[in-house]
Amino acid sequence: MTEEQREQLRAAPRTVISVDAMGGDRGPSAVVSGLARSAAKNPDIRFILHGNAAVLEKLVGKRRALEGRVEIRHADEVVTMEAKPSHVMRHGQGTSMWSAIDSVRKGEAPVCVSCGNTGALMLLSIVRLRKLPGVNRPAIACLWPSRSPQGFNVMLDVGADVRADEHDLLQYALMGTSYARNGLGLERPRVGLLNVGTEENKGRAELKAAHDMIETCAAQANYDFVGFVEGGDIPSDKVDVIVTDGFTGNVALKTGEGTARLIGDFMREAFKATPLSRVAALLAYTSLRRLKKRIDPRRVNGGVFLGLNGTVVKSHGSSDATGVSAAVKLAFELAQSGFSERLAQRVATAACTEDDPKTAIARSAQ
Amino acid sequence: MTEEQREQLRAAPRTVISVDAMGGDRGPSAVVSGLARSAAKNPDIRFILHGNAAVLEKLVGKRRALEGRVEIRHADEVVTMEAKPSHVMRHGQGTSMWSAIDSVRKGEAPVCVSCGNTGALMLLSIVRLRKLPGVNRPAIACLWPSRSPQGFNVMLDVGADVRADEHDLLQYALMGTSYARNGLGLERPRVGLLNVGTEENKGRAELKAAHDMIETCAAQANYDFVGFVEGGDIPSDKVDVIVTDGFTGNVALKTGEGTARLIGDFMREAFKATPLSRVAALLAYTSLRRLKKRIDPRRVNGGVFLGLNGTVVKSHGSSDATGVSAAVKLAFELAQSGFSERLAQRVATAACTEDDPKTAIARSAQ
Repeated sequence: MTEEQREQLRAAPRTVISVDAMGGDRGPSAVVSGLARSAAKNPDIRFILHGNAAVLEKLVGKRRALEGRVEIRHADEVVTMEAKPSHVMRHGQGTSMWSAIDSVRKGEAPVCVSCGNTGALMLLSIVRLRKLPGVNRPAIACLWPSRSPQGFNVMLDVGADVRADEHDLLQYALMGTSYARNGLGLERPRVGLLNVGTEENKGRAELKAAHDMIETCAAQANYDFVGFVEGGDIPSDKVDVIVTDGFTGNVALKTGEGTARLIGDFMREAFKATPLSRVAALLAYTSLRRLKKRIDPRRVNGGVFLGLNGTVVKSHGSSDATGVSAAVKLAFELAQSGFSERLAQRVATAACTEDDPKTAIARSAQ
Repeated sequence: MTEEQREQLRAAPRTVISVDAMGGDRGPSAVVSGLARSAAKNPDIRFILHGNAAVLEKLVGKRRALEGRVEIRHADEVVTMEAKPSHVMRHGQGTSMWSAIDSVRKGEAPVCVSCGNTGALMLLSIVRLRKLPGVNRPAIACLWPSRSPQGFNVMLDVGADVRADEHDLLQYALMGTSYARNGLGLERPRVGLLNVGTEENKGRAELKAAHDMIETCAAQANYDFVGFVEGGDIPSDKVDVIVTDGFTGNVALKTGEGTARLIGDFMREAFKATPLSRVAALLAYTSLRRLKKRIDPRRVNGGVFLGLNGTVVKSHGSSDATGVSAAVKLAFELAQSGFSERLAQRVATAACTEDDPKTAIARSAQ
């Protein structure tokens, strides 16, 4: 890139996404290929790309769609998928992940995207970006294909922390509401709490406490609380935001993805089974392609870290170009809506009336 | 039924299944319709049917396949889906569920099937059949469609208890191994422990402890331990038995079913989308039907309660005839393999060497 091009990049009133090129299972070529896809579709997008400069310059140079739209920041080191988050926190300063997050910290980009080690990315994000005032446990929110008119439901936490008490769950309800409003355009989202039954006497103690707290805050925080929901309701039209702890949410997310992949494979086998079914697959090509797109987990790739000063999008470790491109699209949309600022405002002002002792607890936890 | 028919029923060397006709969401007609389907397919099956005699006689009388193969036991009351398990335990003696379990207790049938209230069925089963010596928390095991050669993997616990400590998880590994051996014919099942990552440093404390205990017992108890598995691995070919607590397992099960239903609906829409795709659906009819059967959650309907003196199969509350028939088929197969006796023997003898303090703990928990 020439100095002139670099100048042009900085001057343009475009949305800049900071991208960690090195962390994923498939390496930087999958990442750059995904960026090229996004750039071709979206003329308003620019990237700051963090990683090994020699490798990245070569990869970016091959993609015409990326010409003049990528600034490369060299980082010597890579956070591996096996690295311990605490080690990365102490010694990760030379890594591409650290550098990518710091672009958000310095205000060079409103959003960061990484396919790297989730635990390390979360911990680095917390340490470098810091939690929003009042947030105890940040969460990762994902979009889930659903029967809702908007086509997706929000679920959180899907893996930031393996624990969550009732105060955390209430915060997740508030943060998820904000995400649904800014990311999906829902004015008054319906919030449900994930449990093993919809009866109020079921489940773990912290869930019963969270049920009451989330119910009490609904009016003030402008969401509808639909009560307990079950695993089968996650893709349903009866709820928009599903609240759960990061252990359960992560298992549910991966189970749903695994089931979708299994059925996809079975479907391909079914269409190869007989000559007639092969003809059928040709005839139904367009419809089947639309179906595939609708249920492809890579298309909804990108968990969003909520509760920090800045937005971080975590793409799957195994993301290919399609997955990276989906994560970049999500990052772009959140950046454009000014999501970080809105969420901060929401968490700061989401107060329930203090008349009720229960909500006073909720408030003190915020 | 004439006295002669009744005599004939008792004399025949057939497998008798005790069935609670009243508990499910769809009432006794769905249950009887499912029994008729099973009876038509399987000449070796007989039923003791528990519920309102007047209603049941009418329903059974309409089904030729059931002629001379059903003994009806009148029960005045029904355990509703909303009933509190503890209330049913104290006051449930006149219910069809109680009566159905007691047929197993008295040795009239080796297996009981019910679509009723899971919590009540579990608690009644524990109280009336009693836990096997050494079992702390009984579990519900389900079959999950998978890429494994046997077509299914076993997962447990999927909802008997919302908690499980490391000792319970080890017992689940032992009981699941026994189920996989008797129900799926796997001589040396591969056991995995569900977690949010496959790295050994991830997840909750009790999971790390369980990991070591299950690993230590593998050789003695004749299974292979594959370590931690994730949600996406549940339908995979890298594991046969997935061990988890009842909260996580229940959410995963319902999430998987919900995802399968969602994709099924999307698929139907796709085939109705254009005239060409409608023709395609006709051409691929046989293949699609096979696919539907392969992923239909009703076909693998039937959780099995493990760890009791006798086998209880819990069918979905919303089971229709297909679901009930699948649960009956599973009950029949388990009865034929003498599963209850084998499991009892397994839990009693599954001793790990006591040289290692870890396994001594495991043993003391059995």
